[in-house]
Amino acid sequence: MSEQRPLRLGIVGLGTVGMGVIRLLATNEALITRRAGRPIQVVAISARDRNKDRGVDLSAFDWVDDMHELALRPDVDVVVELVGGSDGPALTLARTTLGAGKPFVTANKAMLAHHGLDLARLAEKAGVALKYEAAVAGGIPVIKGLREGAAANEISRVYGILNGTCNYILSTMEAEGRDFADVLKEAQELGYAEADPSFDIDGIDAAHKLSILASLAFGTEINFDQVDITGIRAVIAADIAEAADLGYRIRLIAMAENGTDGLFQRVHPMLVPEGHSLAHVNGSLNAIVADGNFVGSLFFQGRGAGDGPTASAVVADLIDVARDEYGDPFAMPVASLARQPKADAGQRKGRYYLRFMVKDRPGVLAEIATAMRDAGVSVESLIQRGATADDSVLLVVVTHVTAQSAVTDTLHRLSGSDSLIGDPMVMHILD
Amino acid sequence: MSEQRPLRLGIVGLGTVGMGVIRLLATNEALITRRAGRPIQVVAISARDRNKDRGVDLSAFDWVDDMHELALRPDVDVVVELVGGSDGPALTLARTTLGAGKPFVTANKAMLAHHGLDLARLAEKAGVALKYEAAVAGGIPVIKGLREGAAANEISRVYGILNGTCNYILSTMEAEGRDFADVLKEAQELGYAEADPSFDIDGIDAAHKLSILASLAFGTEINFDQVDITGIRAVIAADIAEAADLGYRIRLIAMAENGTDGLFQRVHPMLVPEGHSLAHVNGSLNAIVADGNFVGSLFFQGRGAGDGPTASAVVADLIDVARDEYGDPFAMPVASLARQPKADAGQRKGRYYLRFMVKDRPGVLAEIATAMRDAGVSVESLIQRGATADDSVLLVVVTHVTAQSAVTDTLHRLSGSDSLIGDPMVMHILD
Repeated sequence: MSEQRPLRLGIVGLGTVGMGVIRLLATNEALITRRAGRPIQVVAISARDRNKDRGVDLSAFDWVDDMHELALRPDVDVVVELVGGSDGPALTLARTTLGAGKPFVTANKAMLAHHGLDLARLAEKAGVALKYEAAVAGGIPVIKGLREGAAANEISRVYGILNGTCNYILSTMEAEGRDFADVLKEAQELGYAEADPSFDIDGIDAAHKLSILASLAFGTEINFDQVDITGIRAVIAADIAEAADLGYRIRLIAMAENGTDGLFQRVHPMLVPEGHSLAHVNGSLNAIVADGNFVGSLFFQGRGAGDGPTASAVVADLIDVARDEYGDPFAMPVASLARQPKADAGQRKGRYYLRFMVKDRPGVLAEIATAMRDAGVSVESLIQRGATADDSVLLVVVTHVTAQSAVTDTLHRLSGSDSLIGDPMVMHILD
Repeated sequence: MSEQRPLRLGIVGLGTVGMGVIRLLATNEALITRRAGRPIQVVAISARDRNKDRGVDLSAFDWVDDMHELALRPDVDVVVELVGGSDGPALTLARTTLGAGKPFVTANKAMLAHHGLDLARLAEKAGVALKYEAAVAGGIPVIKGLREGAAANEISRVYGILNGTCNYILSTMEAEGRDFADVLKEAQELGYAEADPSFDIDGIDAAHKLSILASLAFGTEINFDQVDITGIRAVIAADIAEAADLGYRIRLIAMAENGTDGLFQRVHPMLVPEGHSLAHVNGSLNAIVADGNFVGSLFFQGRGAGDGPTASAVVADLIDVARDEYGDPFAMPVASLARQPKADAGQRKGRYYLRFMVKDRPGVLAEIATAMRDAGVSVESLIQRGATADDSVLLVVVTHVTAQSAVTDTLHRLSGSDSLIGDPMVMHILD
């Protein structure tokens, strides 16, 4: 039977994930052959540095210096791209591979966020697979969960914890009462955070992933440029403690909603109620919630990064390709995806957490209260903590449901006030 | 393009789920057409009672009294079976449909647990889809999650909460301190439990589902007869209170493990540590954990029953069929599934919770302690609660890690003792 013909891979990129894929395919070889209906074999590999010691004998595979040459080899059926980067070599490789009519499997969220639709068009034209389960939430099969599992539903909202580094930092701050910079430094030493952590902690990585999930959830075009992004740098230990007192935990939440006013996409630290499943996602785990009109809330949780989980997702894609069970990359032809305008964030209603560091002197409270009154923001609760050693006072306000524009207006009215020490912190409260 | 040809359904069974499917297809029609690549249309329907008022105008569909005639109609491309029952009409219908070379979509876990392999052979022979996402955990795409999402992994263990009725009863007992019979009665009045609740509360429904999950997780033949089943009837309010004191919650856990000693499948109430995700699954929700050798622990949670979630799963299957994205029902040809012997439960090691109701008189504690010593069971902690109004004393023992056979031996040594009031309760502790 033709099914017994092996699926032959070319792997480009031999970092931890690339090596994880090679290790997984060897370790679970017999099982994968049974599940895929045929063997999945690595035939060719490519990476920047041939001489780097990767701790594993790679001599069974053909080394190809030029990744495009690898993609075009007649004995390579599928290209697995684990190079990363939104543009540059990864993008060229994707175009070469799909242009040559070969399936392309990738973990590259940045490339998909920026060029996913173009690549999907190429895949459609060639009638081949473009698969990217590993690009979002590592080993959690959430791409499949949205593309197929929840496909019957009108999904109103998809949200979750998509960056393990931020979740590790926030949950460690929470568990140990420590400050951001301190925990970040430790995370870097432990290898949980990059030397340049900005992609993670400034929310860009989560935003890449969110833009992909939103497209699948809503049947809309990917639109990364419309994601509002706030990272976690401004979260202080006191925010976490105050939130805990109020019954919340702080998580970096990526959230997309589709409504009549357009597509809303945002990455930002939020106060998550303790009773919510996302409040119990600790350490470097990832989790996603999708709200469907028939299925209700679906919750997926698992390891969002690391060589094992990411390789698991890459090989799941390869098994789909080997089984010939795949279709349009974004669940429908690109031409069928809706182009949604960006929803006006200012019109969004919700409850807010505002934290001010203020000088310990008369009139400050009145100044803030007046600004809120004039902006039309009504206060649900207010906590003032006595002066600290440096004479600053912590003031935390929880608002009633209000439009975001009113909160922005409040801050605008207070900007330049010499009663404030540093910038106020504003966080949305998840309802 | 041929893709625009509609996928035409015959639906058999018009209870809440059947009506839910009809409602979903109408409500989300445009979206489903985009996602499926073509319209999905109901053309023919069948149920026992044509004259029953179902609250919806069904005159647009052809009513067919004989379900086999419906399956064989040339304008029916796919049959959706929502009749239920392991044998009888549902099974005959499945054989007729698959035998006629047509795809078959079902929510019938009992039929799959008993006849899944036979039906899969028929589907293989005909080269058509046999799909059953709705059979396990309602709207949660866990069939897809195991069959495809986690396909690259050697899965060592799959376990979870698969029966919403039991979880509702246990979590209500927990929240309100009430007794089993009382909560069951209320659940029946609210429609959360059947008039004859035995399939649910005796664990049979969960066992049907578990046997299906185990096959997908391990690549083994379905073997429902090997599932050890204990329901929740013997759980009393005091067990829940004692477990809470010890840091656990009681859940009906369906668990399957695959090891060198064979396949272990069990449904039983367990003590779940408060820090475990399954301890936070409340009400009628379902949740599943799968432990893979590369992905780590995957956790899926959602609504496991009800017309909306179940219809969501049925239509997800139909979208896969419409897209032509399907393959072997149990992820590989039936001939490739391994036939595993049943693991010897007695050899299983773990910690145990034992609860005795004993008479309030001297020597009882010594009698129990002696039996445990002689059976080789060592005690981690022991709680004795003072005599109640009826002179009975509650004695709770938590063991160190021990073989199940030693616990069984303990109970054997104590059987017939007139110090005991009623049967002791034994529960495994989830590690």
